[in-house]
Amino acid sequence: MNNRLEKDDYIQNISYDSVIFGFNGTQLKILILEYHNTGLFALPGGFVKINEDLDEAVKDGVSKRTGLENIYLEQYHTFGSLSRSDSTAMRRIIEESDLDVKDCEWMFGRFISVGYYALINYEEVSPKPDALSDSINWYPIDSLPKLMMDHEEMVAKALQVLRANFENKLIGMNLLPAKFTMKQLQQVHEAILGEKLRRTTFQRKMLSKDILVRHEKLFQGKAHKAPYLYSFK
Amino acid sequence: MNNRLEKDDYIQNISYDSVIFGFNGTQLKILILEYHNTGLFALPGGFVKINEDLDEAVKDGVSKRTGLENIYLEQYHTFGSLSRSDSTAMRRIIEESDLDVKDCEWMFGRFISVGYYALINYEEVSPKPDALSDSINWYPIDSLPKLMMDHEEMVAKALQVLRANFENKLIGMNLLPAKFTMKQLQQVHEAILGEKLRRTTFQRKMLSKDILVRHEKLFQGKAHKAPYLYSFK
Repeated sequence: MNNRLEKDDYIQNISYDSVIFGFNGTQLKILILEYHNTGLFALPGGFVKINEDLDEAVKDGVSKRTGLENIYLEQYHTFGSLSRSDSTAMRRIIEESDLDVKDCEWMFGRFISVGYYALINYEEVSPKPDALSDSINWYPIDSLPKLMMDHEEMVAKALQVLRANFENKLIGMNLLPAKFTMKQLQQVHEAILGEKLRRTTFQRKMLSKDILVRHEKLFQGKAHKAPYLYSFK
Repeated sequence: MNNRLEKDDYIQNISYDSVIFGFNGTQLKILILEYHNTGLFALPGGFVKINEDLDEAVKDGVSKRTGLENIYLEQYHTFGSLSRSDSTAMRRIIEESDLDVKDCEWMFGRFISVGYYALINYEEVSPKPDALSDSINWYPIDSLPKLMMDHEEMVAKALQVLRANFENKLIGMNLLPAKFTMKQLQQVHEAILGEKLRRTTFQRKMLSKDILVRHEKLFQGKAHKAPYLYSFK
């Protein structure tokens, strides 16, 4: 959402929402907005202008709503059930904002929402709440606040897609330094899969995939315990 | 689309399109409609009523447009670029139909389209064209007619998703009899991947996956050549 939300500028009945996963090497979090004076927590979302590509609208909108620039967002599912829209919640958000309620009545209708997700390192960015929101914060995936509308279903589905695909995406998403230890690689897997893995089994599985190059050892303390460094092929 | 297409009943600017893959054990085809007197070929698609779930709209609409009942459709991508809409093509389709052009002007705007795909056995069904179409036919994936708007991109993306996921879906999609030979399993893979596979490599890979149960031999001719039958675990 931005400052001008005039009905004629926007596609009616279409919105987007974004699940931005943050990761610091060991813990997986999600970026959540809290709306002014409503107690409503939500994923960052918005609307699509009539003369703008869907992907562009999402890219611009997420950057405005979160203060984060250049996030690579991937579309994962479109949520179209009739029961998902909640005009009461939307009305409260608008009433507590500086926007004119009458101008915003088009937002209280039914919306089909296109879901996007991203995966970034939350230690490298500082999200900023937009004008509609009190705060924007990272929450661990196992202790999210209660989210509005179907946003919990959106998170669950995004997590499912992330877990199914992340092995293929690990390289592109810059979640690890260029050279990393087997332990760091295991921590990424454990945080995203949400479960502890056995070190020996994990190491054997990774080495059998033929995706890693072994480099020099990482010397930090006792030389005989130094782990090897790896990079992706 | 159905007989009544009044503007107020439908969500403006949202449509769906379906890529229905047909498979007979050895060849992969796609179901394509041709519109009356236009030379326009297209995927079966339609619109979403304001009071209906997206998934339900697609299920009902595809069944009306193709004459095929109870197809399991899966959502795979939403196409939202500004350049994808083509009001000229839509206008020609409506002009050549029995519908009133004035009633249908809302269809000439910009549409974001949600893509669904399905995979069925084309030898078990008889598609029927709807009132808007001259014909509905199965086309082999490597010899499709030129498709309207971005429907070729929709097919390419659906094929990509199908190829990435079909190993997980083979069991649920009833593409093989309950018991099948290794050769039948290989033919499914070859048709969907669009390439020939080496018999020995394929067999070793399948057996190493621990997804098959071996049963009795299939006796058809010479007993010493009879292949084993398998089923999924």
